[in-house]
Amino acid sequence: MLSRRIKDKLQHIATPFYLYDMELLRATLEIVNEESTRYGYKVHYALKANFDKRIFETVRGFGMGVDCVSGNEVKYAVESGFPASSVVYAGVGKSDDEIRYGIEQGIFAFNCESRQELEVINGIAAEMGKIANVALRINPDVDPQTHKNISTGHGDSKFGISYKEVEEVAAKLPELKNINITGLHFHIGSQITSMEPFENLCKRVNMLYGWFTERGFTLTHLNVGGGLGINYENPEAQPIPDFKTYFAVFAEHLDIDPAIEVHFELGRSLVGQCGELITKVLYNKVTAAGSNVAIVDASMTELIRPALYQAHHAIENLNRNDEEGVYTIAGTVCESSDIFAKGITLPAPQRGDLLTLKTAGAYGSAMASRYNMHELPTSVYSDDL
Amino acid sequence: MLSRRIKDKLQHIATPFYLYDMELLRATLEIVNEESTRYGYKVHYALKANFDKRIFETVRGFGMGVDCVSGNEVKYAVESGFPASSVVYAGVGKSDDEIRYGIEQGIFAFNCESRQELEVINGIAAEMGKIANVALRINPDVDPQTHKNISTGHGDSKFGISYKEVEEVAAKLPELKNINITGLHFHIGSQITSMEPFENLCKRVNMLYGWFTERGFTLTHLNVGGGLGINYENPEAQPIPDFKTYFAVFAEHLDIDPAIEVHFELGRSLVGQCGELITKVLYNKVTAAGSNVAIVDASMTELIRPALYQAHHAIENLNRNDEEGVYTIAGTVCESSDIFAKGITLPAPQRGDLLTLKTAGAYGSAMASRYNMHELPTSVYSDDL
Repeated sequence: MLSRRIKDKLQHIATPFYLYDMELLRATLEIVNEESTRYGYKVHYALKANFDKRIFETVRGFGMGVDCVSGNEVKYAVESGFPASSVVYAGVGKSDDEIRYGIEQGIFAFNCESRQELEVINGIAAEMGKIANVALRINPDVDPQTHKNISTGHGDSKFGISYKEVEEVAAKLPELKNINITGLHFHIGSQITSMEPFENLCKRVNMLYGWFTERGFTLTHLNVGGGLGINYENPEAQPIPDFKTYFAVFAEHLDIDPAIEVHFELGRSLVGQCGELITKVLYNKVTAAGSNVAIVDASMTELIRPALYQAHHAIENLNRNDEEGVYTIAGTVCESSDIFAKGITLPAPQRGDLLTLKTAGAYGSAMASRYNMHELPTSVYSDDL
Repeated sequence: MLSRRIKDKLQHIATPFYLYDMELLRATLEIVNEESTRYGYKVHYALKANFDKRIFETVRGFGMGVDCVSGNEVKYAVESGFPASSVVYAGVGKSDDEIRYGIEQGIFAFNCESRQELEVINGIAAEMGKIANVALRINPDVDPQTHKNISTGHGDSKFGISYKEVEEVAAKLPELKNINITGLHFHIGSQITSMEPFENLCKRVNMLYGWFTERGFTLTHLNVGGGLGINYENPEAQPIPDFKTYFAVFAEHLDIDPAIEVHFELGRSLVGQCGELITKVLYNKVTAAGSNVAIVDASMTELIRPALYQAHHAIENLNRNDEEGVYTIAGTVCESSDIFAKGITLPAPQRGDLLTLKTAGAYGSAMASRYNMHELPTSVYSDDL
């Protein structure tokens, strides 16, 4: 909930923009560090959630590693001062140039997603006279119980090495002299709000860990991915996700040698709640079907989640607290999908009011486009207000 | 179908990129001009479909006007040398600054989407001591029989002035001294492949045209929008849409004073078929469920239509013509929605092969994002090869 002071300041800033609550971000990172350190766990920030410079620098200040999904992300992490030894590079489609750059930098590990990728990394490393550190990303076929677009761990997904192929892959590994298998990697999906999928994941991890160690592989780390969900419905009720329970689930259910490092990749749960999209009401109208519509000056070009995933963001009117009405909140883009919310109840938005779309710190600005030749959204940080 | 010569040249260009067939673009624009001139119709290019500079310049060379949906688009059109008198500015959410710029430039018309917007334009024009030309965008409640995300003319859409409000709006107009109602505007949706919705549109247009002229309004133009669909399934069968039939439908069904100009806004049908997205196969894999997957180096950041609308783009392997297989074509982004096609049959894609995703000239590069920190896609023009 924004203070009166902040709300007043926002009235004078050109809309739309992302507002970041840096205090909440720091409080979140502190708790993550506290709860993960309890078990000696290592956390990597999933940069794809938000690559805003100030946010990334703040994350760096808390000593986390980085989970990257493109060569540009690896480069950005290294150039932002993260030690290469804390950088992990995952993703189904790494190009030769991207792989070469990662090897050159000596990153902590490539999370390798297919047999063919193993061979390619091995070949490039051989050319360079180097050994590349690799974690095998194994698709554990665990149902993450989340939206299909962000579910990655089921059996027909494009992600990871199929659990059916593991034996074949393991048999091949000794031939690949220029890669060093240091770990296993798992990621079952995103925005997971029940602990059950994580418990199931632990069981699969234990099984696969046992399988590899029995066959003489010396693993130094297990990366169990991320996916912890956040409260989009009622962000004020839970501004910081329940990291205590989350890490405790792994501590309870993982059954591995305590010398093995356990790594996590967290993105949405670290930065989701600290960001919101502030937009101004331009027009009110009523459709022929009788719906009240408030047209705002933001759109799917700043925040595509509602159009792409039918995602829900809680919306608040920052300018009034009086009579409520039922409204559709629509963006400026010439597409019917550019609707932020349908039939929500809020104090009747009037021309000039600021609305906030909450819980937009993750996969908000990171997915922005210049469709309709819109400018990319700007950022405002609470520390500067 | 690309020639052998072009295919060979493409092998040496860094992927992914958009390839534009400039000859097809010119042929399309020529036919549009020929078929529209037959009835004295005026065509505006819907810039939102593709704002690539070379394409836009080519369109200008054919003497078309421009349909803009943001202040930046109006500015780009004016600065690209289109006369302001050929620029139309539509869109549900025009900001005050955008309106001011349009009035300053003396654009042909604002397509006005709500009662409140009429008042705002009138107020700004009054401040500036100007008269703004306005076409009323009326939502005709015609079912366009297309995807819900690109359907704009139904009764609960955010677009236009509801047909139920027309009387009330018309009664208000005499008070708005700084706007001049020069026309009516309609747009029922996009990618419409049957002529029936256009016939129905004409009937509504006739009715509303009659209603306004009976009440003493002196209209100089009617803008009937766009929406003509293109062949995504089999682009080679119809590289140029059937503009002859399209314009003939309006000529047959519109029943208006011949002195009234009829305007069209065409985007997808002008540029959709001339563009394709060229991408390289990085890896092959097989999922636990047994699906063959080819991972390519393009993704939803270059072409979001499959993820956003479940849109289908025909895909061809440019490197081989031999044994076919059933494949899922997946992009590099860490989202399950980043799939270009599932279960399509094509000559088995191998690492290094180039695939082309056809019919990507409209709403392809225009919607690109830098998600996952990807570079924006580059463009290659057939004229340069």
